[in-house]
Amino acid sequence: MTAIIAKKQFVKDLAPGTRVDDLFVLAERTLSHKKDGNPYLNVVLSDRSGQIKGVAWDHVEQMAAAVAGGDIVRIGGNVSEYRGAPQLVVRSMVAVDPARVDAAEFIPATDLDIDKLFERLLSLTRSIQTPWIKNLFEAFWADPAFVTRFKRAPAAKMMHHAYIGGLLVHCLSMAVLADKLAGHYGGVDRDLLIAGAVLHDVGKVREFDYTTAIDYSDEGRLLSHIVIGLEMVEKRLQTLADVPPEQVNLLKHLIVSHHGAPEFGAVEPPKTLEAVLLHYIDEIDSKINAIREFMAKDDSAQTWTAYHRVLGRHFYRGRTAAAPDKTTATDPETGRTD
Amino acid sequence: MTAIIAKKQFVKDLAPGTRVDDLFVLAERTLSHKKDGNPYLNVVLSDRSGQIKGVAWDHVEQMAAAVAGGDIVRIGGNVSEYRGAPQLVVRSMVAVDPARVDAAEFIPATDLDIDKLFERLLSLTRSIQTPWIKNLFEAFWADPAFVTRFKRAPAAKMMHHAYIGGLLVHCLSMAVLADKLAGHYGGVDRDLLIAGAVLHDVGKVREFDYTTAIDYSDEGRLLSHIVIGLEMVEKRLQTLADVPPEQVNLLKHLIVSHHGAPEFGAVEPPKTLEAVLLHYIDEIDSKINAIREFMAKDDSAQTWTAYHRVLGRHFYRGRTAAAPDKTTATDPETGRTD
Amino acid sequence: MTAIIAKKQFVKDLAPGTRVDDLFVLAERTLSHKKDGNPYLNVVLSDRSGQIKGVAWDHVEQMAAAVAGGDIVRIGGNVSEYRGAPQLVVRSMVAVDPARVDAAEFIPATDLDIDKLFERLLSLTRSIQTPWIKNLFEAFWADPAFVTRFKRAPAAKMMHHAYIGGLLVHCLSMAVLADKLAGHYGGVDRDLLIAGAVLHDVGKVREFDYTTAIDYSDEGRLLSHIVIGLEMVEKRLQTLADVPPEQVNLLKHLIVSHHGAPEFGAVEPPKTLEAVLLHYIDEIDSKINAIREFMAKDDSAQTWTAYHRVLGRHFYRGRTAAAPDKTTATDPETGRTD
Amino acid sequence: MTAIIAKKQFVKDLAPGTRVDDLFVLAERTLSHKKDGNPYLNVVLSDRSGQIKGVAWDHVEQMAAAVAGGDIVRIGGNVSEYRGAPQLVVRSMVAVDPARVDAAEFIPATDLDIDKLFERLLSLTRSIQTPWIKNLFEAFWADPAFVTRFKRAPAAKMMHHAYIGGLLVHCLSMAVLADKLAGHYGGVDRDLLIAGAVLHDVGKVREFDYTTAIDYSDEGRLLSHIVIGLEMVEKRLQTLADVPPEQVNLLKHLIVSHHGAPEFGAVEPPKTLEAVLLHYIDEIDSKINAIREFMAKDDSAQTWTAYHRVLGRHFYRGRTAAAPDKTTATDPETGRTD
Amino acid sequence: MTAIIAKKQFVKDLAPGTRVDDLFVLAERTLSHKKDGNPYLNVVLSDRSGQIKGVAWDHVEQMAAAVAGGDIVRIGGNVSEYRGAPQLVVRSMVAVDPARVDAAEFIPATDLDIDKLFERLLSLTRSIQTPWIKNLFEAFWADPAFVTRFKRAPAAKMMHHAYIGGLLVHCLSMAVLADKLAGHYGGVDRDLLIAGAVLHDVGKVREFDYTTAIDYSDEGRLLSHIVIGLEMVEKRLQTLADVPPEQVNLLKHLIVSHHGAPEFGAVEPPKTLEAVLLHYIDEIDSKINAIREFMAKDDSAQTWTAYHRVLGRHFYRGRTAAAPDKTTATDPETGRTD
Amino acid sequence: MTAIIAKKQFVKDLAPGTRVDDLFVLAERTLSHKKDGNPYLNVVLSDRSGQIKGVAWDHVEQMAAAVAGGDIVRIGGNVSEYRGAPQLVVRSMVAVDPARVDAAEFIPATDLDIDKLFERLLSLTRSIQTPWIKNLFEAFWADPAFVTRFKRAPAAKMMHHAYIGGLLVHCLSMAVLADKLAGHYGGVDRDLLIAGAVLHDVGKVREFDYTTAIDYSDEGRLLSHIVIGLEMVEKRLQTLADVPPEQVNLLKHLIVSHHGAPEFGAVEPPKTLEAVLLHYIDEIDSKINAIREFMAKDDSAQTWTAYHRVLGRHFYRGRTAAAPDKTTATDPETGRTD
Repeated sequence: MTAIIAKKQFVKDLAPGTRVDDLFVLAERTLSHKKDGNPYLNVVLSDRSGQIKGVAWDHVEQMAAAVAGGDIVRIGGNVSEYRGAPQLVVRSMVAVDPARVDAAEFIPATDLDIDKLFERLLSLTRSIQTPWIKNLFEAFWADPAFVTRFKRAPAAKMMHHAYIGGLLVHCLSMAVLADKLAGHYGGVDRDLLIAGAVLHDVGKVREFDYTTAIDYSDEGRLLSHIVIGLEMVEKRLQTLADVPPEQVNLLKHLIVSHHGAPEFGAVEPPKTLEAVLLHYIDEIDSKINAIREFMAKDDSAQTWTAYHRVLGRHFYRGRTAAAPDKTTATDPETGRTD
Repeated sequence: MTAIIAKKQFVKDLAPGTRVDDLFVLAERTLSHKKDGNPYLNVVLSDRSGQIKGVAWDHVEQMAAAVAGGDIVRIGGNVSEYRGAPQLVVRSMVAVDPARVDAAEFIPATDLDIDKLFERLLSLTRSIQTPWIKNLFEAFWADPAFVTRFKRAPAAKMMHHAYIGGLLVHCLSMAVLADKLAGHYGGVDRDLLIAGAVLHDVGKVREFDYTTAIDYSDEGRLLSHIVIGLEMVEKRLQTLADVPPEQVNLLKHLIVSHHGAPEFGAVEPPKTLEAVLLHYIDEIDSKINAIREFMAKDDSAQTWTAYHRVLGRHFYRGRTAAAPDKTTATDPETGRTD
Repeated sequence: MTAIIAKKQFVKDLAPGTRVDDLFVLAERTLSHKKDGNPYLNVVLSDRSGQIKGVAWDHVEQMAAAVAGGDIVRIGGNVSEYRGAPQLVVRSMVAVDPARVDAAEFIPATDLDIDKLFERLLSLTRSIQTPWIKNLFEAFWADPAFVTRFKRAPAAKMMHHAYIGGLLVHCLSMAVLADKLAGHYGGVDRDLLIAGAVLHDVGKVREFDYTTAIDYSDEGRLLSHIVIGLEMVEKRLQTLADVPPEQVNLLKHLIVSHHGAPEFGAVEPPKTLEAVLLHYIDEIDSKINAIREFMAKDDSAQTWTAYHRVLGRHFYRGRTAAAPDKTTATDPETGRTD
Repeated sequence: MTAIIAKKQFVKDLAPGTRVDDLFVLAERTLSHKKDGNPYLNVVLSDRSGQIKGVAWDHVEQMAAAVAGGDIVRIGGNVSEYRGAPQLVVRSMVAVDPARVDAAEFIPATDLDIDKLFERLLSLTRSIQTPWIKNLFEAFWADPAFVTRFKRAPAAKMMHHAYIGGLLVHCLSMAVLADKLAGHYGGVDRDLLIAGAVLHDVGKVREFDYTTAIDYSDEGRLLSHIVIGLEMVEKRLQTLADVPPEQVNLLKHLIVSHHGAPEFGAVEPPKTLEAVLLHYIDEIDSKINAIREFMAKDDSAQTWTAYHRVLGRHFYRGRTAAAPDKTTATDPETGRTD
Repeated sequence: MTAIIAKKQFVKDLAPGTRVDDLFVLAERTLSHKKDGNPYLNVVLSDRSGQIKGVAWDHVEQMAAAVAGGDIVRIGGNVSEYRGAPQLVVRSMVAVDPARVDAAEFIPATDLDIDKLFERLLSLTRSIQTPWIKNLFEAFWADPAFVTRFKRAPAAKMMHHAYIGGLLVHCLSMAVLADKLAGHYGGVDRDLLIAGAVLHDVGKVREFDYTTAIDYSDEGRLLSHIVIGLEMVEKRLQTLADVPPEQVNLLKHLIVSHHGAPEFGAVEPPKTLEAVLLHYIDEIDSKINAIREFMAKDDSAQTWTAYHRVLGRHFYRGRTAAAPDKTTATDPETGRTD
Repeated sequence: MTAIIAKKQFVKDLAPGTRVDDLFVLAERTLSHKKDGNPYLNVVLSDRSGQIKGVAWDHVEQMAAAVAGGDIVRIGGNVSEYRGAPQLVVRSMVAVDPARVDAAEFIPATDLDIDKLFERLLSLTRSIQTPWIKNLFEAFWADPAFVTRFKRAPAAKMMHHAYIGGLLVHCLSMAVLADKLAGHYGGVDRDLLIAGAVLHDVGKVREFDYTTAIDYSDEGRLLSHIVIGLEMVEKRLQTLADVPPEQVNLLKHLIVSHHGAPEFGAVEPPKTLEAVLLHYIDEIDSKINAIREFMAKDDSAQTWTAYHRVLGRHFYRGRTAAAPDKTTATDPETGRTD
């Protein structure tokens, strides 16, 4: 068994002047504008504390040939400063066997206790009365490879819940909301709605690569988490008996339609009460978290946030308010910190 | 005191061949395509049971001069049939003093107990801790003319909650949801959110005329319920002491932004957590009710509804499901019928 | 074995005054505006020659309880005239065992020889060199239930190829175009492109019901032909050995992206050269056929067609030109009639 | 009485190498990417001649704690060069009592004589015949605090008339156009149209902060100038007698609708002839000025301007034409310079 | 010389029961839903007083073969009533030599004095100082065939100025506005702007057919008035000497861009001050006239108009206001009736 | 006769430290942010191998006065480095007589044999049977000034075929596709479709300036290649006899509509089968080439391309695939390299 190599230097501590010799994720690499025949290399290096840009000027071809995006690399170099931010001038870069590192050092993760979150989710899915849905979840939970990935997957690359455990945090929060809303309106099937809340994004366990950094996988870019998730559900359903086809279509419809409208990626718009509710629950949980994470960023003592390019506005933090708690420190069920 | 004239014939009972002599609302009147110098008159007559089209061929000018849209009119005539639906051939039409009729006979109304709904709303607004918001609601509730209108107002002309009491049903349902969601996320001001749920549409008490039929008022069409509602809130605030201006702007922002985006009528997009939540709560309650009301319509034994032109799709009722309960028969708090 | 009931009266021949006693498809039924307690029934009846509207006034409840949309019904009644078009006044309507009718009498179908078209398609898929794609097609063709449905399925409900055999006509035409275009640009995988042309719409064999009339199936409305098609492909792939996962994702991507952009139903936009080409081939074949079918309609001697609501324009037939040939009479490979 | 501190160094003169010791507006401050535990500060400093970026490396926390965005600050430091533009390296920064500075030194202002412009506007509003509108303006003009702000307010932060006096220049120009157009079409109420021209943007006196730099106020961002303006008008109307409610709604409608369509911020679209005209007059005056100000920018000897990102095109200056006059040097009534 | 056949019966006077024998324009003809082998014919007949729908049941093929859309036809038949409007049941229909009718009886025309309007336009174009533009207009005015068509052409088929002389009314009104606005802003070329006002729609003299009814011509539908107008201008320019090419491009740019944005048909967006102004002048004149013509329609005593489908709103006429004057009775220069 | 000045230094070879003394195109020049009274100059210099940014600090006014954008200039200076890319610090810059340079050194060009491509195009247009179209092409080909420009023109400034000869490569490829598709569908006029393929973009020979660098011409920006192309076709048509006007409108319609929809610049949408086909052929050829050129860019060993801003996605190159061939090395007819 190989020993784990300890990591001591983290991106957030890399001040100009620091000499670097440690492991990082090679998040991006780009060979750019050639000059005098020699390419040079722009890189982005990351670990769980953040990202730093770097550049390599010498031996670039050998270096580049030996590494690939997503590799764990040992970097030798120095931190300089460029445009008011630290920049890592890379002297050496070699790939390291990922089996010899502690992946948790390299990718941001929720501060919450993942096992506790998962237990709460289990207790919700075990409260389901509809036999075939109950069995479907048991089939998922009985697959340890799936459970391992499900507990680690992020819910996004950037917008919200973009960290290890983010998918679980998002699904649990939505399932709790689904439970509350199902009782508010007559004619809503609670079991179906909770199932949709837990499974609508299940394809994200394969849509993303998140071993050492969060990025889209090939199948994620080619097929989307909607299509992958449907395939994952169908695969489990084929192992079950007594599955009512009409009900299955209603569950799949929740996955198909949860983005609400075609222009946002819904294959069909929501056509059942449960699908309409699930779409809004998803909107609420993803938007509220995207905004709270944005509000919690640097310089949070200001009344207004910077301009949020995707949402197209500044958000109001308040003249006197303390900055809101970071989402990752929030219990998705109670909304209060541990 | 004038005696109330009893009404005995209702639109839903007007079969071809019926001789008519009773009171109706003149919901619409249109002088169309002249011929041989004489105009003729298309009318829509309504009462609380529905609408019927009618036409008058004779003495049209005298008739038309003596009545206006929205009047209570005594109609003499006969029901014939036109395009598979009954049509009222009007022989005489005279306006009747609205003080002599029971308005409840002329306009659809919720089946729920309006006073009980209002009591629940009161208990919610009285649970508010923030003094100035508490005082603001007391100022509203202390105004009997306002309360009378608020308990009667519809929430829309057609899409959802388009009946007497609809605004109250909608606001109570939203306030209950607001109460549930406020506890789910950290950093949300529950009092502000509940206030927004109750007041976001308050301008609808003037945006619509709903004495005898639901239609837009002049100021409703010219200014919108958003602008009217802001003016109504400002008027009460001017009677209160110790109102913190920053907080007032946050409450007004909830009214200003509750439609979510400019293209749907929001003056500004939601820029606080409460504004984002309120927008989605409004979306959920209005869309779910619009869909349930649509599902409950005629021929509800079919698997799919007809095509919903505004929402752009058919909705699924299910192969075996009974039709969902009518919204008006639903308790907005528990989602169950009394 | 039950004898087939012969059909003698066709919709196109139903002139006012005709007494009717024959079989039709009950394409639509709607219980509308009640009067005097009795519902009445609007129906649309169809056979392969067209559609006619009808109405029933008496015994409506018993009638309605005994039939469902899509049933083959025996109609007794008379043709009257309504708004310049014949209308069938229905006196009796009873469902007939569909096993006792010749389905071909009830639904429009291509005039081309379906078996010949299918043979041409087979010869194209058998020219594929890539082993796993070749095997995938053999798996489809080896399933007689699938082949039967595939040869019958329409490509749409209304816009283009909306007739029995339409899917096959459309796929063959696209496969021929794919073959031509694959050679025009370097770097395009011909086998993949042809496979995409044949399979991109394969889910339509289940998206539609087309036993007696063309309408969406429940799973068609809830999941779309894209999702159904992916499931059909995946099911066959699981029976094959040596299937390269990366290549499979590229084929599925063709199905996922063939609508071109999310607002037109593409789950992901086309991200490979083959996907971009397939999208345009689909656009060309569906638009050209939609326009040609529209040009061929009634009153085709006029220079301009009527306004095409979906495409938003009039089309030019020409001052002197004869009307173009009907699509169904056209050989999709050569563009010439047999 | 405190003496005014004279300002001698202006942004436009800050060449690399200059030693700086003078007063500026702290237009923006951002604490960014931490390193080695110490934040550093990016600032934007401005005065009436323009803006310059700056950076502080030392004692940042003390500095930042003592100042806020919008403060007048005394800056000690040196001008260096960064990316081809001067950059101010800030050594010291302390807030200065704004009562001790001449605000005119810190914010760009129209070159026109504000009092003369205002006189012209007065003579237009005094030509109004409708009593209640005439009285409304007298109520505004009788409020010296309002008049002071109205004469100083800008019409925008960036696009057009973004300088002290800009709102007055814009409103006067529009009122003159309104006067010309009111006579061109029959049925247009000149008094109402002129009132709309003068008051449509009146909320901008509070939507912006423009003491030392132009930025949105909190209420500006939360409520918009439309809502603020309506409140300002309503407040004056409550002091007047004999105000016809229907006419008031028509004036408010001009404010509500002047952006033309909901997606551009109109609460309601224009529904009267005056509202339609006012919208176009606003479009003309704001677009023409935005373009002329853009054409007048640097390097104005070129045939085409740079690409205008908001308007989405290059504008043509002409092969031989001299650059057009700067807007601020133009008399809005005659279009010619003094 | 053939004698003119007098016309005595006009559409507006065709009451049910009237026996008809007179000349009309065959505005539309459609062969629809065949029955029993015989087509039947829906027609729209028009004259200057309006339109009436008609239907023919017998001898349809012979009738249809002998006439074409746009023909002047002698109609024999009777007026019946259909859906509350008169309908002409056509017994005979034969084409009549258009040389034997007075075209003015068949198509709506402005009530204004066309020659006086044209004189005013001439005086405006003769006030132009730029030699080549002056010469260009002289070339147009020297072509009597052009002038005849220009004085008759409508400006639209339906939305606004849809009558004989409408193009002239629209261009004169715009030229007067252009003259006023050119002086308001510095740097605007008055001669160019007036030329654009007069010529921007000049292609409409060929885009429409308006001998007997207003409809698009073939080249109108295929090329648009923009492209036709450019060709008409270029043709005259080729006859002139000393035409500066850069200036010509600026004039053509006015034609190319006057619709403002590509989605509304502008080939390029306006890129000069004159082009921006011309676009808004066109918007004002077409929208104000569209609204005024709509307000003047039937039942104009109501406070609000019917819903305007293209503009998407109701317009406000006022509680007490008399209906506005019809546009055609308005002097486009002064806005007052003669 | 003046001697050609040889060029030895190319942009792609300008490494930091290089001393420069050679000819370049002054592609862009911008006078920016003044300081201490002296402007400074940002420039972009180009030749056929690429572009390099430069800056001049001294004698800027004299320098700027003596050169204009598009000039061939002799540059003296040094290459430094700025933001990881070489930057040319310009010491001297003087315009050089373009007659003394070899234009081919300054602008990228296709690697294909232009004369051979043109021969193939000729053989296609000479296969046309319709006399007037055949004559129209002979009129174009008989004009040597036109042919020279047509063989050199690019098809775009940036997106695709943005090099000398690009228009010819694009038109030939489209004409070959047109020939293939014309035979696929019945009722398509092959001669018209091929003529449209060759002439749809013919206005690009004047829309762009491409003597020394590719940029829009004034008339290109003011009128667009559509309008210019129509004028070029009309000019040749006026020299021909026996031209059928209806057919001419159909050809012009192909030019007018080839962008498909107004929002993409089509003056009218395609209204004939040929116009619909031509639009898609154009889409295919421009998109496929844009994507292939983008895929061939730097760092092409990666599985996915960078994000394509205009097309809004990453494109998939494949895990193992070699980069696709550059478009310019591809025979547009066969899709294979020479």
